[in-house]
Amino acid sequence: MAVDDLIREEDVPAVPAEEYASRHSDVRKLTERLCEPLCPEDCVIQSMPDTSPTRWHLAHVTWFFETFVLSKGLQGYTPFRADFSYLFNSYYNSIGQPFARPNRGLLSRPTMEEIFEYRRAVDQRMQEFLRESDLDRVAPLLPVVEIGLHHEQQHQELLLTDIKHVFSCNPLYPTYRERSTQASPEISPLSWSSNEGGIGWIGHEGSDFAFDNESPRHKVWLDPFLLANRLSTNEEYLRFIEDDGYARPELWLSAGWNQVCEQGWTSPLYWIKQDDGWSNFTLSGLRSMAPSEPVCHISFFEADAFARWSKARLPTEHEWESAAQNLKIQGKFVEESAFHPLPISDEADDRLSQMFGDVWEWTASDYSAYPGYQPLEGALGEYNGKFMCNQYVLRGGSCVTPKSHIRRTYRNFFPTESRWQFSGIRLAR
Amino acid sequence: MAVDDLIREEDVPAVPAEEYASRHSDVRKLTERLCEPLCPEDCVIQSMPDTSPTRWHLAHVTWFFETFVLSKGLQGYTPFRADFSYLFNSYYNSIGQPFARPNRGLLSRPTMEEIFEYRRAVDQRMQEFLRESDLDRVAPLLPVVEIGLHHEQQHQELLLTDIKHVFSCNPLYPTYRERSTQASPEISPLSWSSNEGGIGWIGHEGSDFAFDNESPRHKVWLDPFLLANRLSTNEEYLRFIEDDGYARPELWLSAGWNQVCEQGWTSPLYWIKQDDGWSNFTLSGLRSMAPSEPVCHISFFEADAFARWSKARLPTEHEWESAAQNLKIQGKFVEESAFHPLPISDEADDRLSQMFGDVWEWTASDYSAYPGYQPLEGALGEYNGKFMCNQYVLRGGSCVTPKSHIRRTYRNFFPTESRWQFSGIRLAR
Amino acid sequence: MAVDDLIREEDVPAVPAEEYASRHSDVRKLTERLCEPLCPEDCVIQSMPDTSPTRWHLAHVTWFFETFVLSKGLQGYTPFRADFSYLFNSYYNSIGQPFARPNRGLLSRPTMEEIFEYRRAVDQRMQEFLRESDLDRVAPLLPVVEIGLHHEQQHQELLLTDIKHVFSCNPLYPTYRERSTQASPEISPLSWSSNEGGIGWIGHEGSDFAFDNESPRHKVWLDPFLLANRLSTNEEYLRFIEDDGYARPELWLSAGWNQVCEQGWTSPLYWIKQDDGWSNFTLSGLRSMAPSEPVCHISFFEADAFARWSKARLPTEHEWESAAQNLKIQGKFVEESAFHPLPISDEADDRLSQMFGDVWEWTASDYSAYPGYQPLEGALGEYNGKFMCNQYVLRGGSCVTPKSHIRRTYRNFFPTESRWQFSGIRLAR
Amino acid sequence: MAVDDLIREEDVPAVPAEEYASRHSDVRKLTERLCEPLCPEDCVIQSMPDTSPTRWHLAHVTWFFETFVLSKGLQGYTPFRADFSYLFNSYYNSIGQPFARPNRGLLSRPTMEEIFEYRRAVDQRMQEFLRESDLDRVAPLLPVVEIGLHHEQQHQELLLTDIKHVFSCNPLYPTYRERSTQASPEISPLSWSSNEGGIGWIGHEGSDFAFDNESPRHKVWLDPFLLANRLSTNEEYLRFIEDDGYARPELWLSAGWNQVCEQGWTSPLYWIKQDDGWSNFTLSGLRSMAPSEPVCHISFFEADAFARWSKARLPTEHEWESAAQNLKIQGKFVEESAFHPLPISDEADDRLSQMFGDVWEWTASDYSAYPGYQPLEGALGEYNGKFMCNQYVLRGGSCVTPKSHIRRTYRNFFPTESRWQFSGIRLAR
Repeated sequence: MAVDDLIREEDVPAVPAEEYASRHSDVRKLTERLCEPLCPEDCVIQSMPDTSPTRWHLAHVTWFFETFVLSKGLQGYTPFRADFSYLFNSYYNSIGQPFARPNRGLLSRPTMEEIFEYRRAVDQRMQEFLRESDLDRVAPLLPVVEIGLHHEQQHQELLLTDIKHVFSCNPLYPTYRERSTQASPEISPLSWSSNEGGIGWIGHEGSDFAFDNESPRHKVWLDPFLLANRLSTNEEYLRFIEDDGYARPELWLSAGWNQVCEQGWTSPLYWIKQDDGWSNFTLSGLRSMAPSEPVCHISFFEADAFARWSKARLPTEHEWESAAQNLKIQGKFVEESAFHPLPISDEADDRLSQMFGDVWEWTASDYSAYPGYQPLEGALGEYNGKFMCNQYVLRGGSCVTPKSHIRRTYRNFFPTESRWQFSGIRLAR
Repeated sequence: MAVDDLIREEDVPAVPAEEYASRHSDVRKLTERLCEPLCPEDCVIQSMPDTSPTRWHLAHVTWFFETFVLSKGLQGYTPFRADFSYLFNSYYNSIGQPFARPNRGLLSRPTMEEIFEYRRAVDQRMQEFLRESDLDRVAPLLPVVEIGLHHEQQHQELLLTDIKHVFSCNPLYPTYRERSTQASPEISPLSWSSNEGGIGWIGHEGSDFAFDNESPRHKVWLDPFLLANRLSTNEEYLRFIEDDGYARPELWLSAGWNQVCEQGWTSPLYWIKQDDGWSNFTLSGLRSMAPSEPVCHISFFEADAFARWSKARLPTEHEWESAAQNLKIQGKFVEESAFHPLPISDEADDRLSQMFGDVWEWTASDYSAYPGYQPLEGALGEYNGKFMCNQYVLRGGSCVTPKSHIRRTYRNFFPTESRWQFSGIRLAR
Repeated sequence: MAVDDLIREEDVPAVPAEEYASRHSDVRKLTERLCEPLCPEDCVIQSMPDTSPTRWHLAHVTWFFETFVLSKGLQGYTPFRADFSYLFNSYYNSIGQPFARPNRGLLSRPTMEEIFEYRRAVDQRMQEFLRESDLDRVAPLLPVVEIGLHHEQQHQELLLTDIKHVFSCNPLYPTYRERSTQASPEISPLSWSSNEGGIGWIGHEGSDFAFDNESPRHKVWLDPFLLANRLSTNEEYLRFIEDDGYARPELWLSAGWNQVCEQGWTSPLYWIKQDDGWSNFTLSGLRSMAPSEPVCHISFFEADAFARWSKARLPTEHEWESAAQNLKIQGKFVEESAFHPLPISDEADDRLSQMFGDVWEWTASDYSAYPGYQPLEGALGEYNGKFMCNQYVLRGGSCVTPKSHIRRTYRNFFPTESRWQFSGIRLAR
Repeated sequence: MAVDDLIREEDVPAVPAEEYASRHSDVRKLTERLCEPLCPEDCVIQSMPDTSPTRWHLAHVTWFFETFVLSKGLQGYTPFRADFSYLFNSYYNSIGQPFARPNRGLLSRPTMEEIFEYRRAVDQRMQEFLRESDLDRVAPLLPVVEIGLHHEQQHQELLLTDIKHVFSCNPLYPTYRERSTQASPEISPLSWSSNEGGIGWIGHEGSDFAFDNESPRHKVWLDPFLLANRLSTNEEYLRFIEDDGYARPELWLSAGWNQVCEQGWTSPLYWIKQDDGWSNFTLSGLRSMAPSEPVCHISFFEADAFARWSKARLPTEHEWESAAQNLKIQGKFVEESAFHPLPISDEADDRLSQMFGDVWEWTASDYSAYPGYQPLEGALGEYNGKFMCNQYVLRGGSCVTPKSHIRRTYRNFFPTESRWQFSGIRLAR
């Protein structure tokens, strides 16, 4: 694959390479800071096929820079370890047959120490490359560096959701980070923000970075709609549970009902009923359920059933994006260090709150290509497009998303039964 | 469930009940005629969880009339056999826990003879009810009779696709119906029919029957598009196979590629490679592949990969419906008695041909609710809505669809990996 | 495979071929008589991988005579249908790859009528062969005819156990054969028959027929032991259930306990708890449990746990055979036409009763080769030897075994979790 | 459970408690020494349900002493951590529901450091208990200490077989311990050692320790037999492979043949075919196959098929024990630090060599109770007896067995398909 395959001319960014070097350094440091509370044993475990061991995240994002930047940009570049190309490829078939995903938890070597060494070696070469190479060598690869940084931010989030799942399997309920208990404030009932619809423009525009799946910007027709002014809460969801929500097939999609029966779901993931009421397993250990926190760790099926029970529905991603169009990107992100969604802090009748951060919001839209969608050329074309099937779009980022990572046009996507992400509900009508 | 729950006032049809009686008689007779080539042993087998035994189809459609019409319309109606309500309920949880779908092939009783007796008994009561009852008793149930007739037509098609699958598992390759071999004519290369897009109206309108999932009629925005003038053929698909289509992950959706690897797919269902070239298993036995026939029995994944390989894509269901808007409903349906798609007979540059009949055409659209969609009240609300997830829409009907069953707005839907329906490809760009 | 491979010289039987012809006719007729209560639909179903459709039993035993007798004995013999050799081979790899066992229920053709035609054709050729051929052609194959007759008797039993399982899956609980209800007599408590042990001789001896797994006759050492004078009853087993037998891991082998938990066993197969107490599904339909009938349809695990709970154990097959040495072969066999085990009719303190017929008795002995065991040469060597692993021996025959089929040295064998045979318990200490 | 339940009076050992203290210290130290080559990451992984993480072995053997000795012997003993009782119980249902075995690899906490702390704490209390407590308190528990020490030795072996499996899953093939390559000497063809049979005595006798499954000593009858003078070698096994051993169903038990087909076996576990011939993965990394080493890591099925191909058979455990009766216990054990079986060093015509150490020798005997077998009372009764079903006996110990652990009467047992133990073949006839 030639370098030119990777990028389109118009993508070459205007900012100097040094700025990339400095952002690279920042992003990479955050990843490692997120690992500080973990011991080597924690970083080995793959608790289900969907999750990956911390070790693997740390190495894979490094492999990305090595494979797509260093080995393209530096003549005669020798990989840190030849066999890593096989071990830490996620799903890029063009690069070669990847190591089977469900077996990532079978590897104890390279050890954490060796992986940090790998990171240091690649970081040093990246800094040299970005700061010292000829511009005409560096410039065409800057868009790839950009993708690499966003890619690492995605894995920062996954690293946290995955270790939460790992810890949840341990009856000792380990704590990732202590956090003081806070009162759960009373909050006002849901109100509705109205939008009059019409022709809308959806998708990314402009020279800032966006993933290929956010393009091209295109027209859609929207009928008038209402959007809930805030996220649905634990308290509201508990009413659904207590109204036999998990026992009434008429509230569920057929495939959702099968899931409920086969998996024996009776509450969201990480909800644990104890003698003294409901608790949630969090990255700060087991905590009693806070009624006003946004409900979290629910599947698309549960979001959909809850909406039906509420005599409402989930918004389409077009409705969501259209409503978000003029909102400032603010909310509770990973920088908050709560690693958990928080109650709404500042309420106002029908203004849209909590659109960003806290929890990813399930939409009613399946993840599909925008009209005229073109994946990137070459291996990076496998980044997004090939997953456009049987998944649903989530919007807005979560409490473990880096703030600089999110956009109004950002499309996250997961299968209908996934629950280990910080995923929640905003209703529409 | 009260009768009134089932229908909305405006649905009460204008045609006299006698016309219903006569249509009822016609539809029911066709079902039984389709069983004539079968022996009792054939009618017991469930060859995979997706298919149902012929016995079951015959009884289930009868149960539908008994449950939703006779037991509502006739005071003190005694069911033919009380336990049939459990055995022949498909998926209506509101009626009671249905007999587990994958176990339908474990039942040998009631025998075929007893099921035909059941049919005769219900048919007689239906005729009496429709011809002799007071209008004010009959009228509110006519919309349900209407659904019941369309329901039985759907099962006519399934009965044929399912017995084809059953026969295909038998190394003796039984023949459902003899058919003479025909020459495979040369046909012209694909050409493209263009459509300028804009605001379009999608969905059913008017007083004729349509399923709830075709409503409400609503606006969509369509960018300009091109639609292939005919279906893709075996010959074209063979070129995809010979170009290593089944061995190149870059042509496939990720989930499709997994399916290819896990199932070992190397050709469409029912394609069999023998020493003297490719054959197809058909309802007329094993026949050598006719190059100009529409390619058939492919999954959404295969349709999508073929489209990508063709540097084209699948149409959305909006594009398809918009293009079909003014076309006459004509094509090769079950009345043709070929039980197999046929080569295009009458070609014309860029006019759209083969839009109806022959094979169901996969679209790029997931099966979801139209804006403002309302399922029917009561048990019949389970007919369509609860399947709106992880399935894709197919349009146009097939060679085993009754002609009177299809509409321009008709939405069929199957999961992405389904191959046992008569499903094929029309390309778009 | 040469004819000579099949048999050893000393096996050539002394009785005239005509006697074989007449026994052949009798055995074959009984098989067909056992099918009389069935309709074609019943004969297609394979209710689990362990069972086979009636159709298949009827054809397979016929294939046996065709493959191992007619095609060896008649020069230029043309098989009735070439493809039957593949379809109706059970597990003889030497004959060719057999049709996959779990798929036997996917075949509707040949139909029952065609299979009966197949049987008639083979029967006629067998009669001709046995009655009209030269003795030196017939004689060497008589031992194979002998095996074929015993083989068909085995399948007579399986045909009944399998159709019982098929019917049990149908909520209509079809009846194979009506049988009047009888009072359940009071019976005396268990007593013990003692045996002093020492050197014993085990295995078949003499010129009568026996399967290869019953040879060679050999010495074993037996410590003194006690054997229960009769079979354990439903009433006794019910006490085990009511004493939480299915909920106490300490009573079970580890693998048995796993089975109990995974399968949710709480009673023997075909026991159904209804409002008015326990019922059993039988070949005469659902009947209320008769306390004094021998407990039946239990796995080795259940027999073993019941024995432990009873502060006893299961006998070894050596103990059983040694104790049976001088007993007359009498009991309730298939000729009784009850198709169900019956209460002990004639009791006597510590005399051994019910050793033959009623239910197969699980022993504590795994099914393994006797010292010096030699399987038959050629394909028939696959009859027994290759199953000598992970199965346990059962002795004595059951209520669906033909009386002429059983011997004191007869070794039946099934895996530890099998329950669909008529299998029960005799205790030892 | 009272202390008295655990032991029988006659079991109280004659040796002073101090000697136990000193043996306890030795055994515990060896366990930890075996962990020295491992890093924390290695110790977390459970590579398949049969294996356990190193972490778990270390904690479980400690839990054994805490549960069965300290908490019985020390009044008011407070467990080191209450929740360890649940986490590190293997299969003792009497102690409480154990943590699900297949999930042992989901735990990262307690960390290795914490587990070593746990070991130190329990070791200290054990030393205090054994050296300082009143004799009448200590004495009754010494038999349990004895079991605990043998139990820990069993886990020393498992720790090594399990980490070998873990490492084998890693394409980097980590090395547990370097070992220099040695020449593979030529060795003489197999010869046979004869034994005249007759009445034999089998089982443990005397006051030395033995597991309950080795008792009671009892008589058996043995026909005359021949035993191979040494283990079968890689070279001999390779001839079986090259003679299409894995492709000929007639050589295999039926269940073995299914296993071969389903698992795609074509060689023993850890055999890897590379361009330059066969290699073995060993605890010293990938090494080219040494022809004269004993063949290893084969299942019962492979041992049985190889024996059949060799026109021989596997010995029964009675034959093996009878032949071993007067042999000195010498061979290559874990103390050799080779962690791999070695070629025979000292040959002599028909003398029995390699009976102990190197590889466990599969026998033809299923693992069942000796006549009159009594499991220990209480929870320790679950140690052996409940596994007596569907497993086969292996004899003689292996290169990772501690020498002081093995006995002539020692019965190891594994399911027929297990290959990850150091298991090999001695032929018999």
